[in-house]
Amino acid sequence: MQLVIGNHNYSSWSLRAWLLLRQFGLDFETVRIALFTPGAAEQIKRYNPAGKVPVLLDNGLIIWDSLSICEYISEQHLDGKGWPADPALRAHARSSCAEMHTGFMALRHAMPMNCRRTVENVVISAEVQQDIDRILQLWSGALNLSASEQFLYGEFSIADAFYAPVVYRLTGYGVSLPEQLQAYCDRVLALPACQEWLKLAQQENEVIEEEEV
Amino acid sequence: MQLVIGNHNYSSWSLRAWLLLRQFGLDFETVRIALFTPGAAEQIKRYNPAGKVPVLLDNGLIIWDSLSICEYISEQHLDGKGWPADPALRAHARSSCAEMHTGFMALRHAMPMNCRRTVENVVISAEVQQDIDRILQLWSGALNLSASEQFLYGEFSIADAFYAPVVYRLTGYGVSLPEQLQAYCDRVLALPACQEWLKLAQQENEVIEEEEV
Repeated sequence: MQLVIGNHNYSSWSLRAWLLLRQFGLDFETVRIALFTPGAAEQIKRYNPAGKVPVLLDNGLIIWDSLSICEYISEQHLDGKGWPADPALRAHARSSCAEMHTGFMALRHAMPMNCRRTVENVVISAEVQQDIDRILQLWSGALNLSASEQFLYGEFSIADAFYAPVVYRLTGYGVSLPEQLQAYCDRVLALPACQEWLKLAQQENEVIEEEEV
Repeated sequence: MQLVIGNHNYSSWSLRAWLLLRQFGLDFETVRIALFTPGAAEQIKRYNPAGKVPVLLDNGLIIWDSLSICEYISEQHLDGKGWPADPALRAHARSSCAEMHTGFMALRHAMPMNCRRTVENVVISAEVQQDIDRILQLWSGALNLSASEQFLYGEFSIADAFYAPVVYRLTGYGVSLPEQLQAYCDRVLALPACQEWLKLAQQENEVIEEEEV
């Protein structure tokens, strides 16, 4: 398998698919394309006419979009175990990810993922606060529903991969969190896979100005 | 099962989930909430704190977001048959739906779904044309990949439910289509379920001004 991704530092959608593959110990190679560098857009379009990363190449197939890639990996390589087994948790996890997939525009715009930077005392607008409140509500709901002291729905699942960029955002921009949720973020950041991703981000030297807020 | 939806005429995300349930002959009740009427937002939030339709109530569970609902229905009620069985088609279908789920903002903004209205000679901006071109590329790709003379991936699947609002848009706003794709749209619109949805839309008398372009 090959996973085409953008910059480790900035590409939140790449992180989702990469983290799922890595955390479940699947064998894959990474093809990194530094976004917004000369030729990058054309290179991405060779894999995905929609011009976006990540893209998964497996078994002669080209699978694009982070959510579709995660569903594919779960079904074809994890015997469905990318999602929690319990139908109630499974439904909740899929709904949480679908909501992330389309929503939280204010947060995504105001706090782009930037793994290597720590911004303190960031001013939070009402719209961004609304997004944060909703995410915290979702996370609390997930942790309580699954009675989990580990990840959102117990064992690590696609939901944690999907919200990992938010973990980087909330911690990187210094957003103060309730204890239960800070502990959840700490557990995600302590994963060897997340440590590896962060190291790869720190080794990159490209700077995308519009992502530096 | 109960499916909470918005106005038949305008709520494209509701149509997706409703059409999947109806087309597969599943037993469910519809709870319609006329969007933007007094109390509507509060009523929706009782089902879904994110304040959006559709929401599926099944077996004590609350499942929100059209994509998550479709995955749930496929897995719990259709033995996975909401998606094509062949892994290549299945992956392509999921990628197409995921792209629809997050993208095509220009099209969605310029041509909101409005089942009962037919607008002719609509002016199409470059951004909207780009979205239309990409959708037509996706549809052609799907029909050719599956060698289908029926629906996008052969038999009716979640992908057709997901793109049904686009079928209403392209035909309702009078966008000229290549023969193969016009024939596909005609087949979707001729489905008894789509005829039923259209009739329900025509019976509604609410007008949402910002959706009337």
